Amino acid sequence: MKERKNVTVIGGGTGLSNILRGLKYYPLNLSAIVTVSDDGGSSGKLSEELGVLPPGDIRNCLVALADEESLMAKLFQYRFKEGGLKGHSFGNLFLVAMSDILGDFLLGIKETSKVLAIRGKVLPSTLNRVRLKAIFEDNTQIIGETAISNYKKSRIKKIELIPVRDEEKISATPEAVYALKRSDIIIIGPGSLYTSIIPNLILDEIKETLKNIYIKNKAKIIYICNVMTQPGETTGYKASDHLKAIIENIGFNIFHYIILNNKKPKDDILKKYQESGADFVYPDIENIRALNVEIISGDFISETNVVRHDPYKVSNFIVKNFIE
Amino acid sequence: MKERKNVTVIGGGTGLSNILRGLKYYPLNLSAIVTVSDDGGSSGKLSEELGVLPPGDIRNCLVALADEESLMAKLFQYRFKEGGLKGHSFGNLFLVAMSDILGDFLLGIKETSKVLAIRGKVLPSTLNRVRLKAIFEDNTQIIGETAISNYKKSRIKKIELIPVRDEEKISATPEAVYALKRSDIIIIGPGSLYTSIIPNLILDEIKETLKNIYIKNKAKIIYICNVMTQPGETTGYKASDHLKAIIENIGFNIFHYIILNNKKPKDDILKKYQESGADFVYPDIENIRALNVEIISGDFISETNVVRHDPYKVSNFIVKNFIE
Repeated sequence: MKERKNVTVIGGGTGLSNILRGLKYYPLNLSAIVTVSDDGGSSGKLSEELGVLPPGDIRNCLVALADEESLMAKLFQYRFKEGGLKGHSFGNLFLVAMSDILGDFLLGIKETSKVLAIRGKVLPSTLNRVRLKAIFEDNTQIIGETAISNYKKSRIKKIELIPVRDEEKISATPEAVYALKRSDIIIIGPGSLYTSIIPNLILDEIKETLKNIYIKNKAKIIYICNVMTQPGETTGYKASDHLKAIIENIGFNIFHYIILNNKKPKDDILKKYQESGADFVYPDIENIRALNVEIISGDFISETNVVRHDPYKVSNFIVKNFIE
Repeated sequence: MKERKNVTVIGGGTGLSNILRGLKYYPLNLSAIVTVSDDGGSSGKLSEELGVLPPGDIRNCLVALADEESLMAKLFQYRFKEGGLKGHSFGNLFLVAMSDILGDFLLGIKETSKVLAIRGKVLPSTLNRVRLKAIFEDNTQIIGETAISNYKKSRIKKIELIPVRDEEKISATPEAVYALKRSDIIIIGPGSLYTSIIPNLILDEIKETLKNIYIKNKAKIIYICNVMTQPGETTGYKASDHLKAIIENIGFNIFHYIILNNKKPKDDILKKYQESGADFVYPDIENIRALNVEIISGDFISETNVVRHDPYKVSNFIVKNFIE
């Protein structure tokens, strides 16, 4: 029996869950590294009551990695119907309990993979409580994920992490760094470029670890580019703009490969996206070549009424080409 | 690589958890079959509020089988400290959520092994809601586990299951019967003789399946006799009395082997037990031989201030002698 390959995925949102949902069916040691940033103001009932933030990305990854995904999804979304519990979601209660037991919210998350039947680990990229700060091209500075996504007057130039607790040094979770160091394959993306992907990569230890891995070719580092732009965050971005944004924010290139979808969604679906300010990410191959990243392009999407990476097309491609 | 052996354990209480705690470290396909009987009156805060019973045995087995037992134990025992949640234990909330999602309390339990990181399955022996009824030698009839244990004027003669919902037919959980049919080893006990062990065995499909397995020698069936008597239930019982009680309640012998502890606890510990009406179960070998059950006797206990089966001595013995 061959040894299982170590695969680490860095990302966020439904994009990341989607990739995990495909990869979990292969015999891999899977780790997912996600950001958990505070977003002042957007917390739900539980967080107001118990002082904990609802970590959507974490929940989605845990569910996507579950042995029994539909049951786990139902469990996490389950809301108690009676008594003092009314309205609380099980997923939040679970994370509150874990946080309180481990003495810290992010530590609680880190240990979650040990009690749930899931095919991998979900690791917060940092155990410090952080907020996102964006510096826009018009020099506006905005703090908080939602506020950043809502500011549409200018493009984002730079993302920074600022500590919620004054003066606290922000450092990467050692387990996340360790997962990267022992990886055979590192997949970055898909996910919101400035609010999911870059916040993970700008952490010093993660940045330096990836640089070292890239230079010494210790693992293949693959960027999976988003298939649609996100209004506010990446309006008008071509594929190369995504890569450039990452490279500029971390200071160097870390990608051996980019997986690029070249299948345009159907006109009627595309039109709906365009009406809400999103568009197809144009695979501008020449510009990417100039960045010295090897291009893998093909049809990687599933089209229902949302356009997303197809978990099976993507994971099957990665396993066939980089693992088997 | 050898195929994993299928091992099914039937029992209850801390005795069963203890055996599972030892067996889970071996590469086995483990199933635990437990009774969940209603006990009118003894339900806690949550059950009163949400109409569900607190299933201690189920919780203990899930925790004992956990990859990370101490973390799972903390999680299940965790009580919320604030807001409307105050005082609720996570373990109960978990089982309430699972029950509601699956539409039935016992179905919820059955599916629990699919969402938690545990090394085996915990199966309720029946999905029907049942109460225990004991008929004593003085012909007194008592309903309800706690009341049965508290009646100390006479020995129990017979245990019956009666449906909580009038006229409902009580049948064994198909998955429990299936687990038995594909077992290589079936372990019965330890656990409360009349309130944990026998209630599982008197279910028609389980009884007949075990009879068939015993006769055709399809699996080794091993009884692990309790090491201490239980006041009320088994006061004065020798090892052979335990066997006889089971055989009389189901109508025939199903045991190939009995694992018998012959190590008497230290005097000071024994004295404490005796003060509360419990005593060492005397290994009356001659009487057991007459029942045609092969005897394996030895030192199988761990002694702290409680006398219990030592998980590692028992499981190590079983694996070495019946599996490897």
